[in-house]
Amino acid sequence: MKPIEETHLYREIHQQPALIRELVSVPQEPIKALAKQIKDRGIKHVFIAARGTSDNAGRYAKYLLGAHNRMVVSLAAPSLFTIYRQPPELTNTLVLGISQSGKSPDIVSVLKEGQNQGALTAAITNYPESDLGKAANIVLDLQAGQELSLAATKTYTSQLTTLAILSAALDDEAQTQEDLKMLPDKIDLIFENEAAIDDLAERYRYMTHCVTIGRGFNYASAFEFSLKLKELTYTIAEPYSSADFLHGPVALMDRGFPAFVIAPEGKMNAEMKMMVEKVQNRLAEVILISNQPDLLKMVDHSIRLPAGIPEWLSPILAILPAQMFAMYLAHTRGFDVDNPRGLNKVTETW
Amino acid sequence: MKPIEETHLYREIHQQPALIRELVSVPQEPIKALAKQIKDRGIKHVFIAARGTSDNAGRYAKYLLGAHNRMVVSLAAPSLFTIYRQPPELTNTLVLGISQSGKSPDIVSVLKEGQNQGALTAAITNYPESDLGKAANIVLDLQAGQELSLAATKTYTSQLTTLAILSAALDDEAQTQEDLKMLPDKIDLIFENEAAIDDLAERYRYMTHCVTIGRGFNYASAFEFSLKLKELTYTIAEPYSSADFLHGPVALMDRGFPAFVIAPEGKMNAEMKMMVEKVQNRLAEVILISNQPDLLKMVDHSIRLPAGIPEWLSPILAILPAQMFAMYLAHTRGFDVDNPRGLNKVTETW
Repeated sequence: MKPIEETHLYREIHQQPALIRELVSVPQEPIKALAKQIKDRGIKHVFIAARGTSDNAGRYAKYLLGAHNRMVVSLAAPSLFTIYRQPPELTNTLVLGISQSGKSPDIVSVLKEGQNQGALTAAITNYPESDLGKAANIVLDLQAGQELSLAATKTYTSQLTTLAILSAALDDEAQTQEDLKMLPDKIDLIFENEAAIDDLAERYRYMTHCVTIGRGFNYASAFEFSLKLKELTYTIAEPYSSADFLHGPVALMDRGFPAFVIAPEGKMNAEMKMMVEKVQNRLAEVILISNQPDLLKMVDHSIRLPAGIPEWLSPILAILPAQMFAMYLAHTRGFDVDNPRGLNKVTETW
Repeated sequence: MKPIEETHLYREIHQQPALIRELVSVPQEPIKALAKQIKDRGIKHVFIAARGTSDNAGRYAKYLLGAHNRMVVSLAAPSLFTIYRQPPELTNTLVLGISQSGKSPDIVSVLKEGQNQGALTAAITNYPESDLGKAANIVLDLQAGQELSLAATKTYTSQLTTLAILSAALDDEAQTQEDLKMLPDKIDLIFENEAAIDDLAERYRYMTHCVTIGRGFNYASAFEFSLKLKELTYTIAEPYSSADFLHGPVALMDRGFPAFVIAPEGKMNAEMKMMVEKVQNRLAEVILISNQPDLLKMVDHSIRLPAGIPEWLSPILAILPAQMFAMYLAHTRGFDVDNPRGLNKVTETW
């Protein structure tokens, strides 16, 4: 088997610090232009079309643009456009397509409908010249370079960072700009944990199923962690918000059931603590990704995040150890991390 | 163990034909009043707050109000209201709370915020006098009688039926009224299959995990079936749209992996057929809930739905055999179907 360092996935995971540093350091004129259009038109609704990993970036946008910019974000049901052919009315709405390749036909069709209705359309993509890019009034280029691994990593964090810069451009506050500037240094700190993450993955060599749990801003992280575990390691991994999890599915947990909990410091602290307690009462095994000392001391297995991360940016950081964990787990299982079975790079769904 | 016929769950599942017949036969004045308000105010956005089973009713609303009424439906992130305290701007939006009990504090807080902002608020609940009912301009009473089983069944189909009547009142077309009238007779036909469903459940006595798949209108059905399997039988059951499933998670499937596919006749026919083929190529086991002869002859295990169901009403019918399946599976496993472990009737999430 190829050494992990020689895989595309490993290289792309390790390109993330430099890519994010570039995104937050260099002025992103198209993002500013989009923010200006949103403000000038008084747009308060965002309609996002995306699939797979990009849909998880949409989940982040829902919380971020909601909490920081008071926008109502709706995740599109693309089949309303492509199969039922009954698109909703999108006037005075930002129609935002998020797609690494810019090629998914159902995502493109949502943007085209937005254009036909005269809505403001924007695309977040790694390929500005793609069909999606062409259907957008404003294209936000991820500038992530070609992603050769089938599992998306660097394009996901570039999508989140792009959304974070957009939110900051909309709210125009000095603090959010400061927050963005410190992001790259925090990312570097996360990679110092890599050997420990590799070690931890060994323990889960024979894990067949698990849940991933996050809430608020990190609801998206639970979904993206789950997707990486499914794509790369073929583990049955179901994502939950802690609120939904406690309402029913907690009944699934029995002794040793693995629950990956993503809980960086923030307003969800008390709630996540209560949730960890309830899960542990069922004798389940909690694996925590966090920087909260009170939470960390409750569990035996954890990946420590650096201190002092603003909650709204935490999903960009918290997903990095999750990506590495999934990669090392796949590798220790002897799987080809660059070409997982059953995956295509472009989602050809209609 | 108590005979299944003496459980609340069995009784409540069997109350559904009469309850739905009543809902569609008797003029529902509050629904008409709500439709009038939506039209008079020119409202095109719906913001739905719900948890658990009620959230699945919200998923149905997203497709239904989208496809039939061209409304943009956003499923709320209640934590934006309760924990981050940054509610979005809801003016000119219908804020709709769906809750069996009407007591979930986070759902109530979304409606209160809607009221404070001067939005039109409505509640779909079994308890019009609840806090949720009090926070609503218009209350749509489910009229389902007390639900004593912890797992929701009759309140779910009453919620769907209420939403269907609302959609029909908004579009004002003779055909949708006709469709609604034939619903009760179709429901009676489904219960003729009950013994076969009981037999089928036996086969899955030792199933530990599965996926449930639906798309379009029946995306909600996949979620609700999954939730019943989790709540009642403690099976790890993850819901998917066929589009998302084929984009990655299909890689999980190996020989015998159970995939419950809900595919009543409709515009998704070709797509569901392709999906069943792909799943069967992986030697997985498809259990089909459908009335499409071409799909049914592809599989060895199925629950047959009556012919001639309008697609937009099919989620009300397709969930009934799924509820029965989960009940009989729980019973054959020796579980208490009325008091599943880890469940409370009221979701006390903040």
